[in-house]
Amino acid sequence: MKVDPKRGVEGFLFSAVSCGMKRDEGSLDLALIYSPGGASVAGAFTKNLVVAAPVVLDRERLKSGQCKAILANAGCANACTGPEGYRDALLTCEWIAKELGIQPEEVMLASTGVIGTRLPLDKMRKGIPKLVRGLDTSRLEDVARAIMTTDTRPKVTCREISLGKVSVRIASVAKGAGMIHPRMATMLCFVVTDAAISPSLLQECLNRCLPTSFNSITVDGDTSTNDTVLVLANGARPDAFIGPGSREEELFVSGMGEVLEEMALEIVRDAEGATKLVHVRVEGAEDEDSAQKAARAIAHSPLVKTAFYGEDVNWGRIVAAAGYSGASMKVEELDLWYDDIQVLKKGSPLGPVAEEKAKEVARKREFTVTINLGMGSSRATIHTCDLSPSYVQINGSYRS
Amino acid sequence: MKVDPKRGVEGFLFSAVSCGMKRDEGSLDLALIYSPGGASVAGAFTKNLVVAAPVVLDRERLKSGQCKAILANAGCANACTGPEGYRDALLTCEWIAKELGIQPEEVMLASTGVIGTRLPLDKMRKGIPKLVRGLDTSRLEDVARAIMTTDTRPKVTCREISLGKVSVRIASVAKGAGMIHPRMATMLCFVVTDAAISPSLLQECLNRCLPTSFNSITVDGDTSTNDTVLVLANGARPDAFIGPGSREEELFVSGMGEVLEEMALEIVRDAEGATKLVHVRVEGAEDEDSAQKAARAIAHSPLVKTAFYGEDVNWGRIVAAAGYSGASMKVEELDLWYDDIQVLKKGSPLGPVAEEKAKEVARKREFTVTINLGMGSSRATIHTCDLSPSYVQINGSYRS
Repeated sequence: MKVDPKRGVEGFLFSAVSCGMKRDEGSLDLALIYSPGGASVAGAFTKNLVVAAPVVLDRERLKSGQCKAILANAGCANACTGPEGYRDALLTCEWIAKELGIQPEEVMLASTGVIGTRLPLDKMRKGIPKLVRGLDTSRLEDVARAIMTTDTRPKVTCREISLGKVSVRIASVAKGAGMIHPRMATMLCFVVTDAAISPSLLQECLNRCLPTSFNSITVDGDTSTNDTVLVLANGARPDAFIGPGSREEELFVSGMGEVLEEMALEIVRDAEGATKLVHVRVEGAEDEDSAQKAARAIAHSPLVKTAFYGEDVNWGRIVAAAGYSGASMKVEELDLWYDDIQVLKKGSPLGPVAEEKAKEVARKREFTVTINLGMGSSRATIHTCDLSPSYVQINGSYRS
Repeated sequence: MKVDPKRGVEGFLFSAVSCGMKRDEGSLDLALIYSPGGASVAGAFTKNLVVAAPVVLDRERLKSGQCKAILANAGCANACTGPEGYRDALLTCEWIAKELGIQPEEVMLASTGVIGTRLPLDKMRKGIPKLVRGLDTSRLEDVARAIMTTDTRPKVTCREISLGKVSVRIASVAKGAGMIHPRMATMLCFVVTDAAISPSLLQECLNRCLPTSFNSITVDGDTSTNDTVLVLANGARPDAFIGPGSREEELFVSGMGEVLEEMALEIVRDAEGATKLVHVRVEGAEDEDSAQKAARAIAHSPLVKTAFYGEDVNWGRIVAAAGYSGASMKVEELDLWYDDIQVLKKGSPLGPVAEEKAKEVARKREFTVTINLGMGSSRATIHTCDLSPSYVQINGSYRS
């Protein structure tokens, strides 16, 4: 059940301030999530070999399984900044820890923005006392606003899910809209819950939710240096204890999965220049890997994505992308649908009447393309968006 | 030495007519290359699992090593057309063979255009007698025009190369500008030479030329169902005999390599919506495969390509693309240049002065980006173009 994010999650405080790090003066750009009683923490990070300083630091700190705060900034990614960038990250942890009266090691960091420039330390230092003074249970959406870059709207959700006898809240903020603005990057997602769960089980639950949420979306196929998902569970509801292998674990995973999928789809919906959300479903693949390969090739293809933009039922491009994906297929067995309108059956086009009907589907703001490779029973879905001239304008526009 | 394509290549005749298969009425759309005395033939085709009927047919006929004619059409790709499409292809071979007085098996085919629609057989049948009447030694450029789709200009070259005591001509026409127009596809290249060479050695020579020419370019990463390179050597200069392992073979490979590279770069220069040709060079890779992976990831990245369009020295995106390419790298050893201007040294940015200079490079119509991964001594170059709003407009525009 969705609840107003303003109602917050027990034991969590939120704040955000403007430090002048974004181009728009006065925009919120520094955010804080704080659980005074501590929390189990789990995380997932970019697979890029080039990672930002905050990712290096978080990976290290995640080992303890515990944290009290997340400090996040937009405007500067603190990536490709060498050893100095890492020292900057450590410094900001010290400042916020001192202000909160906790240990620097209890702070997790996240940054998004320009690659290759140093954090504006003076601005951040000045903003931190005000950030801490602003802490409040109701300000989750401000955190969502502060981490926005080319996002057109804040991405925030709060749900109450039943674990049987008791219920817990799971709330999340996220940002991301492509690899964003000149030199700007990153998908960030923070999840907070008042469930009581061990760090290792929390990590396991997160890992189970990722394949169908953040690992099933694509905007431009560009993996950022800063991608970060952090989940904090503070056990403010100690009666909502989740043990390994329990029924509660299944319900929690299902609830967290829904939250993460909602955030992931929100990112694709709000992708740079996007006008459509398209679910690319591959069926009848030889194995899981082939299904993933075919779905990703289709979802990444600039030609498929421009056809989505043009509302053109251009199934030839979809077939061609599956054909070069590396997945096996029987060309004479291929089936292809736009929602429930079939346009290709056993490798032969079904003709103009079917295509006319499929065109109506292609005009929708959200639809599903399904291709059956005729090889086996494995399947995969990747959520993608169209490629519009605005994407190019946004990403080609000259950095000021 | 380049020569006027009008001077042709000994023993080859060329023709092109308009059959009304393209949207622009009156445009040339059916082309013929004819060597009455026969020719050794070599070929290379798309790696896509979904291949057009003419590719299926050519692969089969290539086994004989001999052919007399290439019939090529634009406007319809004859791909995803099932068994009927294959029968259509056979029929067109029969018609042109009858008109020329040769065997249907001596004809190679190539098609480019809409996927999923049948060849307009009536139009082609009507055009064929006129096509044969128009054969002439000087009409190579007409062939280049007839195979154009979204190409903005014909791609044709003719060179005279010395094999030591004698010289031969190598001429080529090509088309391709992305995977082109709604449902239009394909890169085609035909090469003709009067050298005397066996089919197997000719194939070997072609294979040696491909890695640095057509296998080193990318426009949008979409592999068509119809990509075809055909080389015909008719031995009209029997004194220009090329034997295996000879000095002549090396000179011939070098000359053919130059011709293919010229055609390949012409395709990238004329890519849909492209305003820039960028050579992406990876150095210091662990092995050849890593060098290729990194160069291709950079050259394919929509974020890198939009930055090229925006003339933004956005080296962070280049580093990020290399980082997710799968290639190993030492982040603290990374070097990066725009032409000879270094912007990143041992993983640290060289600052605004270097970037200002690099901006001047990024404003050029053609430049080289070099990244050194600091791992070993392998290298690779991929030629790419920028991604402009026009690419999206061209590919997203509604099929009429």
